[in-house]
Amino acid sequence: MGTGLLLVVSGPSGAGKGSICKKLIETNPQIKVSVSATTRKAREGEVDGVNYFFIEKGKFETMLEQDEFLEYAKVYDNYYGTPKKYVLENLKKGNDVLLEIDIEGALQIKEKFEEGVFIFILPPSMEELKNRIVGRGTETAEDIDKRYGSAMDEIKQVIKYDYAVINDDLTRAKGDVEAIITAEKCKLMRVYEDIQTRF
Amino acid sequence: MGTGLLLVVSGPSGAGKGSICKKLIETNPQIKVSVSATTRKAREGEVDGVNYFFIEKGKFETMLEQDEFLEYAKVYDNYYGTPKKYVLENLKKGNDVLLEIDIEGALQIKEKFEEGVFIFILPPSMEELKNRIVGRGTETAEDIDKRYGSAMDEIKQVIKYDYAVINDDLTRAKGDVEAIITAEKCKLMRVYEDIQTRF
Repeated sequence: MGTGLLLVVSGPSGAGKGSICKKLIETNPQIKVSVSATTRKAREGEVDGVNYFFIEKGKFETMLEQDEFLEYAKVYDNYYGTPKKYVLENLKKGNDVLLEIDIEGALQIKEKFEEGVFIFILPPSMEELKNRIVGRGTETAEDIDKRYGSAMDEIKQVIKYDYAVINDDLTRAKGDVEAIITAEKCKLMRVYEDIQTRF
Repeated sequence: MGTGLLLVVSGPSGAGKGSICKKLIETNPQIKVSVSATTRKAREGEVDGVNYFFIEKGKFETMLEQDEFLEYAKVYDNYYGTPKKYVLENLKKGNDVLLEIDIEGALQIKEKFEEGVFIFILPPSMEELKNRIVGRGTETAEDIDKRYGSAMDEIKQVIKYDYAVINDDLTRAKGDVEAIITAEKCKLMRVYEDIQTRF
């Protein structure tokens, strides 16, 4: 069967990439979820190895020097990054790996790992996106405006992705991602070696 | 939503492309099926406009001169071809069009219509392919050997296709083709115009 798929799912906040990924792994437990590493302190309720791997700044910087991240970012004083090891080991075993990640991170990964499947989740409209951000009720009016503004910029990056899924209906959107996974596994470049062995 | 998809399904005889296409249109009645034209006489039970459009040689040749076929072949004294008009009109309306066709025809279409979705149906193994050809009980031993030999050659052409679907289970194989259709509709190049209009 060859290697697994690296599924990189991103999109602006409020598009619903989190909900889609959650639903996807509920019904596809064989998909492995990549967990990011960060140097920021764990917040209440966050579990090491589930929400993030919480590591020391010194360790993160050593890992950086040794090129052990697929992508990383420094936000204020904290690092965030995707450790390579877990992802590559699982792909090699033939497991699909899901990476829910912001657009900047996704584009860093694309440079290093072109054969990944890059999926952009879109809201049905900008109006609906604003409603969703407001609906969370966790952000100030200023934050909402800021998020809305960056969503507009982020959506322009869709052109760098392989697929775009419009999240107007969660079940259908999840189905689209599942179909993308199935179709990618039928792509000639992914099955050609197997065909040469069989025939 | 833009134009529909031209689905070109082919593969060696015995791979089961006919069964997959039949099952596909049973559950997806919105897919339009392209009907070939031929100059050979209708056989018993064949219906004009269903199995083929049975047309006169003179008419076929005039259509050829006027570039009205997506592909054609001359087998002994008879012409076979895919009329462009039906296919292009339906794609323009946003309908997906299914074309079940031999490999030579598919490759002709690829030259003219690169944006088609080219799907190759494979048997699970050559042994199983032979069993299926024999199982039909309609062919002589010589015919069987001939078909088996050309299947070997035909399978080498898989490299020119976008997708390969292994027909070891009819329901799964049909599901693979459905997933390919769904995924193709999420491909960035197909949705980019729509996204630009929406956002």
